[in-house]
Amino acid sequence: GYGRTGVIYYEDGLQNEVVEGGILRSGSDSQVISRLRMNIDAATSTDQGVDFGARFRIQWDQNGDNSGELNAGKLYVTSSGLTVEVGNVDTALDSAGLIYGSELGSYDRSVGGNALGSFFAYESEAYEDDDRLGVAATYAVENLEVRFSYVDPDQTGLNEDFIPDDPFSGDDEEFNAKEEFSFSVDYTWNERLELSGGFALNGAGIDDHDVYFVGARYAVMENARIGLNWIDNGDAGSLTGISSDPTNPNVIEDFGNTVTLYGDYTLADGLTNIEAYIANNSGDWTQKETDNSFGIGVNYDLGGARLGASLQRDYQERVTADMGVRFDF
Amino acid sequence: GYGRTGVIYYEDGLQNEVVEGGILRSGSDSQVISRLRMNIDAATSTDQGVDFGARFRIQWDQNGDNSGELNAGKLYVTSSGLTVEVGNVDTALDSAGLIYGSELGSYDRSVGGNALGSFFAYESEAYEDDDRLGVAATYAVENLEVRFSYVDPDQTGLNEDFIPDDPFSGDDEEFNAKEEFSFSVDYTWNERLELSGGFALNGAGIDDHDVYFVGARYAVMENARIGLNWIDNGDAGSLTGISSDPTNPNVIEDFGNTVTLYGDYTLADGLTNIEAYIANNSGDWTQKETDNSFGIGVNYDLGGARLGASLQRDYQERVTADMGVRFDF
Amino acid sequence: GYGRTGVIYYEDGLQNEVVEGGILRSGSDSQVISRLRMNIDAATSTDQGVDFGARFRIQWDQNGDNSGELNAGKLYVTSSGLTVEVGNVDTALDSAGLIYGSELGSYDRSVGGNALGSFFAYESEAYEDDDRLGVAATYAVENLEVRFSYVDPDQTGLNEDFIPDDPFSGDDEEFNAKEEFSFSVDYTWNERLELSGGFALNGAGIDDHDVYFVGARYAVMENARIGLNWIDNGDAGSLTGISSDPTNPNVIEDFGNTVTLYGDYTLADGLTNIEAYIANNSGDWTQKETDNSFGIGVNYDLGGARLGASLQRDYQERVTADMGVRFDF
Repeated sequence: GYGRTGVIYYEDGLQNEVVEGGILRSGSDSQVISRLRMNIDAATSTDQGVDFGARFRIQWDQNGDNSGELNAGKLYVTSSGLTVEVGNVDTALDSAGLIYGSELGSYDRSVGGNALGSFFAYESEAYEDDDRLGVAATYAVENLEVRFSYVDPDQTGLNEDFIPDDPFSGDDEEFNAKEEFSFSVDYTWNERLELSGGFALNGAGIDDHDVYFVGARYAVMENARIGLNWIDNGDAGSLTGISSDPTNPNVIEDFGNTVTLYGDYTLADGLTNIEAYIANNSGDWTQKETDNSFGIGVNYDLGGARLGASLQRDYQERVTADMGVRFDF
Repeated sequence: GYGRTGVIYYEDGLQNEVVEGGILRSGSDSQVISRLRMNIDAATSTDQGVDFGARFRIQWDQNGDNSGELNAGKLYVTSSGLTVEVGNVDTALDSAGLIYGSELGSYDRSVGGNALGSFFAYESEAYEDDDRLGVAATYAVENLEVRFSYVDPDQTGLNEDFIPDDPFSGDDEEFNAKEEFSFSVDYTWNERLELSGGFALNGAGIDDHDVYFVGARYAVMENARIGLNWIDNGDAGSLTGISSDPTNPNVIEDFGNTVTLYGDYTLADGLTNIEAYIANNSGDWTQKETDNSFGIGVNYDLGGARLGASLQRDYQERVTADMGVRFDF
Repeated sequence: GYGRTGVIYYEDGLQNEVVEGGILRSGSDSQVISRLRMNIDAATSTDQGVDFGARFRIQWDQNGDNSGELNAGKLYVTSSGLTVEVGNVDTALDSAGLIYGSELGSYDRSVGGNALGSFFAYESEAYEDDDRLGVAATYAVENLEVRFSYVDPDQTGLNEDFIPDDPFSGDDEEFNAKEEFSFSVDYTWNERLELSGGFALNGAGIDDHDVYFVGARYAVMENARIGLNWIDNGDAGSLTGISSDPTNPNVIEDFGNTVTLYGDYTLADGLTNIEAYIANNSGDWTQKETDNSFGIGVNYDLGGARLGASLQRDYQERVTADMGVRFDF
């Protein structure tokens, strides 16, 4: 697991907005945001060399949880490069090697470059529905890794007819009942070129909402890399940096596609890494002010921990910045 | 702890029945059912050689919990074969060596052979009442083990007058306020004959509800054992395989006695274990179709994990089957 | 962490009082009270010798929790005697070396000598408010330790205007929105004289409620110590031993100051420690019967565990006693 703490700034007090009696109240622009994550792993091996294992996670998010929280369990079996997981699985699209490639700083945030379209992932919080079922398989050999995952939000079949909220209204879906199928593949060529792609059908359990991703990253020098990501965000998702302002309610017409150019450069000290991205999104929603989002960040390696910072602008032309420390254990 | 996963089939969608507007809806007959259990133990020894220890358990049950859950703590002290526990204790009857002897497969299920009458056990979930108190003592010497336990569902004494729901109506008791006393003893003779017996008075805290058990198992060959269990189920409990069908509501006249004949046989490979039981119950309830329940199962030892399966028929003549894998760590 | 169990007696069934329909019902005077606490620590060191670490705690309190509960996380960094914590921090006043010096027995209880005024501490239970922020710093060098802490009950700033309940009414404050500043210092002189002091401003987040503490303890012999504590309890807090009796409701005029004289003496066996205190409180509340509280206790060291007992009288002239065992791991 890891611990991280520091300060996140978001313009217009967007980290905590409350509408009371039709009037918008915003929290402080800058807040201390920490996370503590511990994975509890257990494993055993059979006489035939097959490994069985399992994981729980305890996670606490400042401003989100009032205590550490356990999640649903994951069970897996591994043999000869093939891993099969059951339960709270790592989904295929979420595990694609480059899909989070444009993230910056110690908080690993990318308000413009990450997918806006939603899909299932390994769930650090409690399930919304007890009856969720996940199954995943990963095959890894040399430079190639192929993943498949299946998540049924309710395996009892009792909720198949549920109609989710209209994704275009921006309301949260209370429950999504379709089965998500997800696939991804990573390939590294000659230790310099990384290729990554995948998709999620019925993403996050929402009927006919599909997310597609293709990405590549090339090491132009020993200490510099450039990457390009393309994401089709599908019909449902969540946006970063939207205000709850009742006088300017946000209506989503289209999540569009996101194209992100990003790169990083390590200084001669071998410890300081500069990183940046510029992202273009073709979607359309009420509060959108620009099609271009960008950010720049830096990480300094302490050897066991790292200091990091980033400065970013989102699609509503709001500025966010963060600075903090992260240590892994 | 351990992890286990696989598929459980229950006829008529009995794993998830919902009555909505007077109409019965049943979930899928076959579902993936997993459990992940981790025990968190801590212990210390005094200079006099007395061991003090404690345990929490984290458990996640698919289709039952939306996240891993902690239980109430157990504290114990051990010296010279005598163990005294306080808190969330292992109760005497639940710990009797043969009471679960007829369980089959990787899920260790016995829909006909296990006790129908209820009694307290070590609680893997949260207590229903904060004020529950348990105390238990175990004395083990060579081939003999004697256990006593006491559970007060509410040690404040404020709820002694509470009247539980009529056990014959089949409704769940919301709160049971009497003190349960439980006792059990195990004895092994000549490494071939196992004897086991016990009882729980005011079982599960229900006034005048007593459960009695006697069992024996004999190794007829090196690789074959036969056992016989007798259980007086008392006045309160829970039945397996009952439908919530509003047109055929289940009324319990009598939980009766259960007599179970069971055995297991290990094949010449030393890894495959065949097991079976046949159980007869003298009780009477509306949905009961037969006095005889039976099942057959198999386990294959992977050395550190095991594959297992079972096929069983319950007292409502419903068929259930399971197949899965379990690994201990 | 540690485990402890035993029996606590409180006159008039004060451990569980319920008012039902205007009538007071009291629980048993003597109850088995146990606690199981496990700390989950993780840490790492950077190449420069800076230590980063983090902690969760799992705690179960009999009669208080129906299962073990996780708390909010603490993150810290340590280097050259300076420790900085973020999250669920150890606050300065709560960490003052002698503030709990008069506690007795295996339960470490002091109904008269501990502070009545409230202030923040490391929180073993879940936060009341997700948005709580704590920051603390400790500097330790040879015989000196200096601590500072800051706790903002709601760092969003959205609840600054909240008016807490009148502290004089004895009602619980539902939410306290001010920022607490706390400071403390410990100094040991010549290995015989311990000095300790500190304060908390806006204690527990309550506006203008300040708690001050000064204490000293002197080793008059190799095996005997005498201490004196002075606490200004401020305007808000909680009292021990108050009855919920609706015919004698408790109204608090003044928490007053508490002066406590305490000491302990180790017998020649080196294992048995006798301890006692006498405390005088100048406050005024309806149920108060005396300005003097006192207690005597004993601990017997088992080497890895300890047996302990105490007998105390509170400011309502109610007697409480406890006897139990505690083991650390």
